[in-house]
Amino acid sequence: MACKKTRIAKRIHVWSRRASSRARLSDQPWCDEVFPEPQEAAASADLVVICSPVDFIVQLYKEIKPALKPHALVTDVGSTKSVICRQANSGGADQEHFIGAHPMAGSEKTGMDFADEDLFLNNPCIVTPLENSDDSAIHRVVQFWKSLGAVTFVRTPEDHDEIVAHISHLPHLIASSLCQFLDKKPGHWEQLSSSGLRDTTRVAAGDPTMWKAIIETNQEEIKRALSQYQDELQRIHSALTNGNMLEIISILEKGKQFRDRLS
Amino acid sequence: MACKKTRIAKRIHVWSRRASSRARLSDQPWCDEVFPEPQEAAASADLVVICSPVDFIVQLYKEIKPALKPHALVTDVGSTKSVICRQANSGGADQEHFIGAHPMAGSEKTGMDFADEDLFLNNPCIVTPLENSDDSAIHRVVQFWKSLGAVTFVRTPEDHDEIVAHISHLPHLIASSLCQFLDKKPGHWEQLSSSGLRDTTRVAAGDPTMWKAIIETNQEEIKRALSQYQDELQRIHSALTNGNMLEIISILEKGKQFRDRLS
Repeated sequence: MACKKTRIAKRIHVWSRRASSRARLSDQPWCDEVFPEPQEAAASADLVVICSPVDFIVQLYKEIKPALKPHALVTDVGSTKSVICRQANSGGADQEHFIGAHPMAGSEKTGMDFADEDLFLNNPCIVTPLENSDDSAIHRVVQFWKSLGAVTFVRTPEDHDEIVAHISHLPHLIASSLCQFLDKKPGHWEQLSSSGLRDTTRVAAGDPTMWKAIIETNQEEIKRALSQYQDELQRIHSALTNGNMLEIISILEKGKQFRDRLS
Repeated sequence: MACKKTRIAKRIHVWSRRASSRARLSDQPWCDEVFPEPQEAAASADLVVICSPVDFIVQLYKEIKPALKPHALVTDVGSTKSVICRQANSGGADQEHFIGAHPMAGSEKTGMDFADEDLFLNNPCIVTPLENSDDSAIHRVVQFWKSLGAVTFVRTPEDHDEIVAHISHLPHLIASSLCQFLDKKPGHWEQLSSSGLRDTTRVAAGDPTMWKAIIETNQEEIKRALSQYQDELQRIHSALTNGNMLEIISILEKGKQFRDRLS
């Protein structure tokens, strides 16, 4: 939808795993053609965007690779990057085909009903080439995401994974664990909650299977971030035990400083 | 504003600590009269609502008490209740005067510029009488909050404090500690964040002084809730260490179940 709106593609070819989704896609004004096999959809493309869950991206890339045109480029939207980018480029000589990307956009909702042609507008998109990726290929992928309105950043896949472990995956696990903790409490408690709890936990409504795959492909970085965050909570626990309100207000103030910058 | 809109008061008398606020209040169409002293504002009232930070509520109540009419009622909007309700009613004979309340509404923003006449509409309000509170007084306070559109619940101050420690104060501390943790990381990281992190941490932009007072008056319950939540995070940490993805997906699924019910 964003490609059609911004007119950056002459034709948009689409493949989707489920026949029911392909049937619905055929009726979409932004779809020029829908194919029953991924290789067919990718065959005449200059640029391919793989938008599957993270644990299918490399497999899909390997499937379409033999069908790609010589200078075709492939990018993706996966939330983790090291495993994907390293495995996708493990073939050797043809590594200029795949330049990973992670547009930081979307919500806890999934599926075509929540599609939004302005999804990428003014949102960050991290492009993650390898050390030996082709400069012009990197440039083309960056330009693609810029054309959709994204604010692009270039990072190594490893830097990407460390950063999003902190700013996306850890916050997700914090929200999920808070929800499953409160799920054990009496049912009438949740009736008393308000917008604060709803906002704090919104991301926990995300698809568990999709998020399990994200966590699985970024386990080490998430574990490191989580350990450090656990130390921070322990500092609060100690401050409460000791009645150290100076420590508490310092945490609240530093937290507010950071949050005010995000707005 | 909500009282004026719902026409539940014949006259609305207001006091505010700061002279500059009192001057602005005089121009508000919903204010019938502004007084320089709290006793004067409360003197002719049938119902008084104390809306100060939690650590000033009891003090204000004790100040206005000698000026109150015999059957005048006092309620409040404090986020913690045990300390306030027990101390307010420690005088003995005249305990029918004070029935605490906690409307679960508002945002991280404070001050008159963010006032909203529909703030209480369809939001929970917990009314917290003591064991020996007068039934008709409880009824009047409940009716007051219902008239403003709130969904009312009656709980003991101690039950209230346990519940909100879990559904409001713990989520706040989690958000604040996540923000102050991320505040230590390289500044360019936060540029890559998106709506997920913004929503998860919104409450951390709240006023630190106000929240320090809330935490200080509910330390024990918050500490208990935090301890249990720390155990939940440790379960996630162990699951990541052991590569136990079944445990991770179970947490994500239970978290989603709870969150879907909140919507």
